[in-house]
Amino acid sequence: MADVVTVESGPLPDAVIDAALPRVTAVLGQTALPRERLDRAPHLKAILNVEGNFFPNIDYTHCFARGIRIACVSPVFAQPVAEYALALTLDLVRGITVGDRAMREGREQYGWRGNVGYSSLFGADVGIIGFGNIARALMPLLAPFRCRVRAFDPWLPAASLREFGAEATDLEAVLTLSRVVIVLAAPTAQNRQFIGATELACLRDGCKLIVLSRADVVDFEALNAEMRRGRIEVATDVFPEEPLPLKDPLRGMTGVLLSSHRAGGLDAALKAIGEMAIDDLSLILRGLPPVRMQSAQPETVAMQRSKPGLMAK
Amino acid sequence: MADVVTVESGPLPDAVIDAALPRVTAVLGQTALPRERLDRAPHLKAILNVEGNFFPNIDYTHCFARGIRIACVSPVFAQPVAEYALALTLDLVRGITVGDRAMREGREQYGWRGNVGYSSLFGADVGIIGFGNIARALMPLLAPFRCRVRAFDPWLPAASLREFGAEATDLEAVLTLSRVVIVLAAPTAQNRQFIGATELACLRDGCKLIVLSRADVVDFEALNAEMRRGRIEVATDVFPEEPLPLKDPLRGMTGVLLSSHRAGGLDAALKAIGEMAIDDLSLILRGLPPVRMQSAQPETVAMQRSKPGLMAK
Amino acid sequence: MADVVTVESGPLPDAVIDAALPRVTAVLGQTALPRERLDRAPHLKAILNVEGNFFPNIDYTHCFARGIRIACVSPVFAQPVAEYALALTLDLVRGITVGDRAMREGREQYGWRGNVGYSSLFGADVGIIGFGNIARALMPLLAPFRCRVRAFDPWLPAASLREFGAEATDLEAVLTLSRVVIVLAAPTAQNRQFIGATELACLRDGCKLIVLSRADVVDFEALNAEMRRGRIEVATDVFPEEPLPLKDPLRGMTGVLLSSHRAGGLDAALKAIGEMAIDDLSLILRGLPPVRMQSAQPETVAMQRSKPGLMAK
Amino acid sequence: MADVVTVESGPLPDAVIDAALPRVTAVLGQTALPRERLDRAPHLKAILNVEGNFFPNIDYTHCFARGIRIACVSPVFAQPVAEYALALTLDLVRGITVGDRAMREGREQYGWRGNVGYSSLFGADVGIIGFGNIARALMPLLAPFRCRVRAFDPWLPAASLREFGAEATDLEAVLTLSRVVIVLAAPTAQNRQFIGATELACLRDGCKLIVLSRADVVDFEALNAEMRRGRIEVATDVFPEEPLPLKDPLRGMTGVLLSSHRAGGLDAALKAIGEMAIDDLSLILRGLPPVRMQSAQPETVAMQRSKPGLMAK
Repeated sequence: MADVVTVESGPLPDAVIDAALPRVTAVLGQTALPRERLDRAPHLKAILNVEGNFFPNIDYTHCFARGIRIACVSPVFAQPVAEYALALTLDLVRGITVGDRAMREGREQYGWRGNVGYSSLFGADVGIIGFGNIARALMPLLAPFRCRVRAFDPWLPAASLREFGAEATDLEAVLTLSRVVIVLAAPTAQNRQFIGATELACLRDGCKLIVLSRADVVDFEALNAEMRRGRIEVATDVFPEEPLPLKDPLRGMTGVLLSSHRAGGLDAALKAIGEMAIDDLSLILRGLPPVRMQSAQPETVAMQRSKPGLMAK
Repeated sequence: MADVVTVESGPLPDAVIDAALPRVTAVLGQTALPRERLDRAPHLKAILNVEGNFFPNIDYTHCFARGIRIACVSPVFAQPVAEYALALTLDLVRGITVGDRAMREGREQYGWRGNVGYSSLFGADVGIIGFGNIARALMPLLAPFRCRVRAFDPWLPAASLREFGAEATDLEAVLTLSRVVIVLAAPTAQNRQFIGATELACLRDGCKLIVLSRADVVDFEALNAEMRRGRIEVATDVFPEEPLPLKDPLRGMTGVLLSSHRAGGLDAALKAIGEMAIDDLSLILRGLPPVRMQSAQPETVAMQRSKPGLMAK
Repeated sequence: MADVVTVESGPLPDAVIDAALPRVTAVLGQTALPRERLDRAPHLKAILNVEGNFFPNIDYTHCFARGIRIACVSPVFAQPVAEYALALTLDLVRGITVGDRAMREGREQYGWRGNVGYSSLFGADVGIIGFGNIARALMPLLAPFRCRVRAFDPWLPAASLREFGAEATDLEAVLTLSRVVIVLAAPTAQNRQFIGATELACLRDGCKLIVLSRADVVDFEALNAEMRRGRIEVATDVFPEEPLPLKDPLRGMTGVLLSSHRAGGLDAALKAIGEMAIDDLSLILRGLPPVRMQSAQPETVAMQRSKPGLMAK
Repeated sequence: MADVVTVESGPLPDAVIDAALPRVTAVLGQTALPRERLDRAPHLKAILNVEGNFFPNIDYTHCFARGIRIACVSPVFAQPVAEYALALTLDLVRGITVGDRAMREGREQYGWRGNVGYSSLFGADVGIIGFGNIARALMPLLAPFRCRVRAFDPWLPAASLREFGAEATDLEAVLTLSRVVIVLAAPTAQNRQFIGATELACLRDGCKLIVLSRADVVDFEALNAEMRRGRIEVATDVFPEEPLPLKDPLRGMTGVLLSSHRAGGLDAALKAIGEMAIDDLSLILRGLPPVRMQSAQPETVAMQRSKPGLMAK
């Protein structure tokens, strides 16, 4: 049995929060919880953020010292985003959207001739940048294609990647040896625009680049310049500014597949968020650790610097 | 050691064929071999058709009686076509090409709003019509999505489908219960346009229909009519007439993903055809049965009614 | 609708056969069908042998010329035998039966000490000799162990093995490079005792050898001699003489795991045989090729030289 | 660069520990760390226990408050123990060790007759009790057998089991519906001997029971009584007293497969422990969270009540 304090829409009003703090056990959502609020919540055991990222509106250090669990629902997005990564990858590798456009413009080629510049994902060299939840959900989808997967993730030892069937390499090897490069890195304090002009110049001619993480790990100005050279093809689900300005040159460019931040935001994920939070809340109330949501780690929570995304709106 | 008779391009001239018949062991290609030619080829052991289908230019009955092996390279196309089937499926399910078109036209929605009408392949009900080489190559690609796959194939017992992880059902169950229907049936003497107005009307609202077999198993006039109702979305790699006439209404229709008979014709497949034929020819010359190409079966070869496709040109 | 001619037990009496020949469509079982009987069966379309092997009591050449299908149920044994192969392999690799025997004799060691000489199948070099139905059913069982599998099969090109995840090598490479060698070769006119003293001497110290095919591909005298050296451990499900004579030294030898020809003969297989034969008979009566049983191939049927095994009794 | 303080064998002497505390960053091993020692180790960031369990010789509460990481190497044992679980399961299901014993005693049956009472793991109903690291490593090994796996784990929601392909049920359903029951539960303060006479009486006739966790989750007296009834077959790697007393009746019982606590203790695991600890120590020294070892959880560390096992000696 639990009392639930909620409001119909929008954030909880301060007065409601203040009234609830003395007896609250768990907070669901993205309520700001600075030290002064935490001090008034002596029974607080868990903060369950029903978004995919951790935001800087909580005094994490104090929570860790007090043993308050903080967790977010990022695992819920792993499968839909991995599926989307495969969809974009197959689209670029086989030339699906460009083929459709060619037919609509009456300039298509048939059979072998229509496949010039396109190939198969079977046995391809695939590079992954950032090997978190999404990459782990992507590996089983890639498995039947028997790709050689190289991955770069500075937070993980080689054995952790090997366990999932990927080879750990440095960033340069991923960029220079892959026919397909999939960017899945989460944004941190260290990696802003770390894929810039130099990195893009490393890509092989004909490389297919898929960008699914938040836009600010990629230097989009450099990406635009590289695309104009026509050496690579790109699919991107994220943009430095969303909505993408109507006059942005990307909107008219060939060689790019455009997607409006749709990788994770499916109805099924929304439903799964609720189930995931309830499952973990039940465990926490029974004195057990949460297992479905992703717990904030003291070492990394401060490095993450997401702001609420469009997905959440 | 073998003498090889070949020409630089085009079919072998009759005179060359006639001269070679008395001592030929194996024929590679699509040379016509009626009874009178076979009678002059006493040493003939194998006819290896380096295309994906059997054509009516061979006296099959006589070959079977004499123990002459006839085989084609259709297995070489199984993986690329299965990959293409998955690419088209993911495109329709997640709305990839329509999303790109929306962005180019400046009318995209972001996040959850952009995904209205689209969902995930994970756990979806998938229907397959025709469970031959391609479907068998598709099942492992679908496996990580944990779909429930129903399949209809009148030439196969339920256990043969179960072995690959599919449930055998009748055509109606495939059509009415699936969110995604993939048509992979090979054309036979019996199945011309067997997917017509009645069958299409069975499809669920919002069903995604993918057509990859030869066009004549589907009644395209009925398909056009059904698509205009806007109930279903369709991807098709084949058309009753190829090239598709420039004025065909399909070229301007929303809700359809167009592909110009590109599912199988990859460079890698071309290379694999040669290896496959050489592998099997080596076995045959050693007195062993071919194992990589698909041997013609006395019962079915007469039912197949392909004509050389654009892919072969 | 079909008339079925059968007897309660034992082979059909000649008189019954003679009476049935003029109108028989299909023969199930192992009835002898020499040319003179075939000549009196003008409507015969199929001979479905409900055993795992082809026997020399049929005029195969004549059947092929007439287009009579001959098939056996060997595929039904693939999964149970592959499972048994994995069971014997894990037993030898981890030392299960020897460990039990040690405990019964009160001389066991605990923990690390008890595992001296034993290791893990994960990542092991595995060799397979004979890559037919059983090996193909074994590969998925081995897959999660991420073994490197080398295989020798003189009837198959390298690409056919690669398709199942194995590397084609010569026999010597299989013998010298593997920590586990699994013998699955079917007996043919060419391979009697082809695993003899020389081949066994090639095995690495500590190699685990599993014998599951018919005994006569292995020189058991040489095997006995090699085992007495104590260099290798062996599991065998077959013996040159079955039942194995009570005084055979194998019965008392350490380093051998003994099994009384039990790999395939499960109740579930017996049931599956019936279903398989009915499925294929139904197809044949509809004018379609059988798909579940294994059709006799003109090139190889003569090379096979099984005699009815104990399994069939 | 790090100073390493170690001794050739045995635990670190108190004097060595006391001298090191003021500047120690990480402790590897099982050194006791009560509050007074922790207070003298202001720079301590991590305690990496190179055993598979957490012991009560650390002030965990104080470590959590200070943000000191505590982790153990239990994941290293997941694969070898899962492999052993499969080996024991296949042994009981197919009757491997009993078959070998029968041949050594000259009373074996051949073929079908030898398999009475034995069957196949393919498609079997399998029950798992305790769904931690080992069960997760076991699921991929079971996957190709297409078993229906029911699992009971009171610490996990149904979705966590479903993710790995198992159905969450209560204990009774696991016990009454499975043909094979595998006990993998870790010992906790709550579950001592929770598999007792009542639970064992629930098992189906012919059930195969595999015990791999620590012995004290099972009431061995009740197990002995149940085995004497001859209704079930059992394999066990653990015993209430190890070494098992020489006169223990289990040593002579048919229907039991005995193993001397050998499931995890392989050389390869020992090597992996070192690599795992070094990998995580490197991450911790770089300010990142460990990813390979299992971090102690505040909620559960107090419930675990292992004592150093024989494996560690």
